[in-house]
Amino acid sequence: MAMTGLTRRRGRPPASESTAGDTRGRIVRAAVELFAEKGFHGTGVAEIGDRADVQRGALYYHIGSKEELLWQILRDYTQLMLADAERITSGDDDPITKLRKLIHSHVELIVDHRREVAIQLRDVGALTGERGAQLQELRDRIQLHWQQVLDAGYAAGLLRTADHVITNSVLGMLNMVTFWYRPHGGRSPGEIAELLAATVLDGVVTDHHTKG
Amino acid sequence: MAMTGLTRRRGRPPASESTAGDTRGRIVRAAVELFAEKGFHGTGVAEIGDRADVQRGALYYHIGSKEELLWQILRDYTQLMLADAERITSGDDDPITKLRKLIHSHVELIVDHRREVAIQLRDVGALTGERGAQLQELRDRIQLHWQQVLDAGYAAGLLRTADHVITNSVLGMLNMVTFWYRPHGGRSPGEIAELLAATVLDGVVTDHHTKG
Repeated sequence: MAMTGLTRRRGRPPASESTAGDTRGRIVRAAVELFAEKGFHGTGVAEIGDRADVQRGALYYHIGSKEELLWQILRDYTQLMLADAERITSGDDDPITKLRKLIHSHVELIVDHRREVAIQLRDVGALTGERGAQLQELRDRIQLHWQQVLDAGYAAGLLRTADHVITNSVLGMLNMVTFWYRPHGGRSPGEIAELLAATVLDGVVTDHHTKG
Repeated sequence: MAMTGLTRRRGRPPASESTAGDTRGRIVRAAVELFAEKGFHGTGVAEIGDRADVQRGALYYHIGSKEELLWQILRDYTQLMLADAERITSGDDDPITKLRKLIHSHVELIVDHRREVAIQLRDVGALTGERGAQLQELRDRIQLHWQQVLDAGYAAGLLRTADHVITNSVLGMLNMVTFWYRPHGGRSPGEIAELLAATVLDGVVTDHHTKG
């Protein structure tokens, strides 16, 4: 559905509706498409301008630099994930319910932002200095919310482990959804999230030790 | 240990030991390092020659092109994974034991080849035409071995699911080890594999439905 929204909003709007915000939005959407298709290093600033239908001078006025665009793209979607993780972890649910909700939230955001996730997995190294550090800090805060839920579940005797290996791996598994998910592949994001939540929580083995 | 081997074998060998195989090996090792550090597109052929201590003409004689190097690097480690998956799935173990062995094999190969895995996750799109198709075929064959083990486990009533979502996700989770594994991070590859195998097989929840 993010795709539909994006397609609908692309192209040159009537002049009377064209504000700085519209132009900026067109540039960002063009950059997301191009970075996802060709990589950050493989995309030229002129191409972004062509696809967004924005002239060179206006492009620099609105975005500053290609790295600034990359930073904004990765920051915006990471902040969405962080906000949702904060909302879930600050609620009153038990840790297992929170973990299930975190998995659902993460899978659905990743499916909606799979191009941004692919850009991040490939090109996050192109963010240098302060921007790279700030993005890493946002990501660390997301991971900390997951870790706190695992720690609380372990302390309450609900989980067998709160090992960082598990936190890293579960987040990694969810991020990788971006590489194999297909919009019409037969599973909705919610179904994928439920399958993955069931695996993380209960494993794939049936009625442990009673069969086989 | 792969790192140690690599470090030991770098640098210019005595002229009397320098064979075509040595030169070729030095070029491949230099390319793995540079592609992992700077990306395929960010690495120039001249840089590979400098790091391998091989002159420009000899470089082209030994490797043909930068894409040819990328192809050989990704093919070689993927073939290792496929060979190990074939060995495990053709054995006499029950499906759960096979799944555990597949996870161990995959994690240990990924830790040993984490630079190749990082190159693949970032730059596999740079392989065009026939080479891209051949690599995808090797990867599909690996995934098929995993799927056959899951299918056999499901048919025998040992596993709750053999959904492709699980196969994709478990392989994705293991590949992502490359992004957070640190050689002296407190967990050996075998320990990481065991934690992940336990999670996939039995989940993170304790004594199901009896607590909480």
